Amino acid sequence: MALVVQKYGGTSVGTVDRIRNVARRVAKTFDEGNEVVVIVSAMAGETNRLVALADEISETPSEREYDVLVSTGEQVTIALLSMCLQSMGYKAKSYLGYQIPMLTDNVHAKARIKSIGDEKIRADLKEGTIIVVAGFQGTDDVGDITTLGRGGSDTSAVAVAAGLKADVCEIYTDVDGVYTTDPRIVPEATKMEKISYDEMLEMASLGSKILQIRSVEFAKKYGVVVHVRSSFNDNPGTLVMKEDNDMETVLVSGIAYNKDEAKISLLRVPDQPGIASQLFKPLSDANITVDMIIQNVSHDGHTDMTFTVPKADFKKAIEIVQGLSGNIGASGVKGNENISKVSIIGVGMRSHSGVASKMFDALSAEGINIEMISTSEIKVSCVIDSKYTELAVRVLHEAFGLDKKAQEETTI
Amino acid sequence: MALVVQKYGGTSVGTVDRIRNVARRVAKTFDEGNEVVVIVSAMAGETNRLVALADEISETPSEREYDVLVSTGEQVTIALLSMCLQSMGYKAKSYLGYQIPMLTDNVHAKARIKSIGDEKIRADLKEGTIIVVAGFQGTDDVGDITTLGRGGSDTSAVAVAAGLKADVCEIYTDVDGVYTTDPRIVPEATKMEKISYDEMLEMASLGSKILQIRSVEFAKKYGVVVHVRSSFNDNPGTLVMKEDNDMETVLVSGIAYNKDEAKISLLRVPDQPGIASQLFKPLSDANITVDMIIQNVSHDGHTDMTFTVPKADFKKAIEIVQGLSGNIGASGVKGNENISKVSIIGVGMRSHSGVASKMFDALSAEGINIEMISTSEIKVSCVIDSKYTELAVRVLHEAFGLDKKAQEETTI
Repeated sequence: MALVVQKYGGTSVGTVDRIRNVARRVAKTFDEGNEVVVIVSAMAGETNRLVALADEISETPSEREYDVLVSTGEQVTIALLSMCLQSMGYKAKSYLGYQIPMLTDNVHAKARIKSIGDEKIRADLKEGTIIVVAGFQGTDDVGDITTLGRGGSDTSAVAVAAGLKADVCEIYTDVDGVYTTDPRIVPEATKMEKISYDEMLEMASLGSKILQIRSVEFAKKYGVVVHVRSSFNDNPGTLVMKEDNDMETVLVSGIAYNKDEAKISLLRVPDQPGIASQLFKPLSDANITVDMIIQNVSHDGHTDMTFTVPKADFKKAIEIVQGLSGNIGASGVKGNENISKVSIIGVGMRSHSGVASKMFDALSAEGINIEMISTSEIKVSCVIDSKYTELAVRVLHEAFGLDKKAQEETTI
Repeated sequence: MALVVQKYGGTSVGTVDRIRNVARRVAKTFDEGNEVVVIVSAMAGETNRLVALADEISETPSEREYDVLVSTGEQVTIALLSMCLQSMGYKAKSYLGYQIPMLTDNVHAKARIKSIGDEKIRADLKEGTIIVVAGFQGTDDVGDITTLGRGGSDTSAVAVAAGLKADVCEIYTDVDGVYTTDPRIVPEATKMEKISYDEMLEMASLGSKILQIRSVEFAKKYGVVVHVRSSFNDNPGTLVMKEDNDMETVLVSGIAYNKDEAKISLLRVPDQPGIASQLFKPLSDANITVDMIIQNVSHDGHTDMTFTVPKADFKKAIEIVQGLSGNIGASGVKGNENISKVSIIGVGMRSHSGVASKMFDALSAEGINIEMISTSEIKVSCVIDSKYTELAVRVLHEAFGLDKKAQEETTI
């Protein structure tokens, strides 16, 4: 008998009929002899409806009250799913954040989980009850409702799985699992059987939007095995788990891309201490997240400084930088929104040299110019002209032997 | 400085604009130097929407989960009203049942209040915060959400007022106050300045639907002064309060009527012990509430037995009684749906004789036949043919000097 945590997102519980489908899947898992804890999101559209009400009332609603408001979405779903399981003859019981309790800090609208109570849930599980938990919400230490930020239900699920030491945390979504790259660009992309936490973190933050990043960090910290799979079929999905020996034999596990960034360059900046801080402090004060930063070797005591920001913040960022440019002593500012970032990711590259140069070769063979490079232990990212994005992804996918055909050949 | 509890129903908070109106009224009360605690219902229509979802899932939804579901309605309103007050520059804070805590028994969907915590609310009030409380909901002693039954927000308000020893509990509704009778039938009906708890209980249970009965019982038990008034104007309404000397000088305070009952008679029942129990046990088992019961003197060891039931249960009741009739030894069963009950109510009649006979006289002067009579210390009810209802109400209203004109004359 295993303890299985399952999480279903807003689309999977978007209508009463879909809630019935979820109930059937939950019941099946229970009938197979497992203890089951289900985490659910608000019905699709519900959170937006609530946020719209708040917006109508106030431009800057109190975050405490915002959490009281939006947390009702998940509360509705847990009641309906529990009723549905009961009507099918199962024992089921809903849990709100404060009832678990899922204790968080008091940073409303983006709270961080501090601890998970397991006593009450364990007692109910022992009596053969299916537990239905409201995702996205917790409670702070004075009993106020907190929420974990959009997509927080993934994090709730992983946290509950960690708290209960569950055997697996299944995240049901509308895709079959994690693919070696976006199948819409590369039809030969294959579903990975497993992927390490670190690789998943890079995949997620680089533009694959399957799991909330924080849930992966949480899973890594507590060693929770996450099974990403489809709520529309019974196919096994992808296990997100601790690195194992198999994983290291693969140089590159996946190719990610991100078209949502823009590039800003400050030209001929005096190469002296304090410049970076003068530049990036005002950006961070304006809540602009800077991703890649490149500063090249200095010529005549001057250097060019280039960095990327989210495309949505590009205008605001370029205004700030233009305002600073004179004070910093730069000769000018250049911006470019037509860029994208392609990345190769794999824990295997840690112990192998030559992976980066193979990437550069593959891109240059197609005449794709590399504008920026950034590397970490398990990934290499290149900024290129955005019009080459799809081509670059296809080329890299093939170059690192990730195409379905190539893999089959390897197997033979 | 007074401590004022205000309650606004679903219609008063039915849209964002109406919530803004409520916020302005609350703010005004606060600006006048009062401490303010507001109790609100779900936005009009919301509870029905949630109940419909539950109905779609299951014919017999679990009451625990039903409470989890429907209590979200009030949760949405408290968040929105708090946000609205904050956007107007006031300190405001929402409270859910478990946060107060409003402790109830664990009879879901119709829980009874056991105690009200006042510590947290008092501390917030002291800091100049307006408190916004979710009506209708409480928590049981294991931390599960309970609800008080439809209309329970009135009871929440009175209970909070009792717990905080508030100076007044204002119940805002769509009428100006409590009238001597239904103004749609008698245009001369006048708004009462005050009414005793017992009179209000008789008025409410006899068909005037202004306050939930349980809230009046609660107010009586804890001596809470309830001010029923309109949310559409600033007119003073009606105070529901402890009996005082003024009230006793009035023989009859109001005339109530009820068209929702039907009459069933069992003819020539053997007059022996155990018959009543044989008759009424099966009705109560079928959840049918019997109101008036009349059993007359016995002739030849037989008696007629007549009682009233809600019109909605008439068919079911008559089937049950017909099934029993043979066993009991009755000679037949008669039913009549075309009846209504008119009542005169007043604490003054306790110390005055002749009130009942004045009622019978007034009815008989119009040729209205009385089919059943039932009396209590402060009311006399007569069952009559329903076609005479309006006439009877008008006649009684005039006979006991309640008409506007009559009152003015008395004053002169």
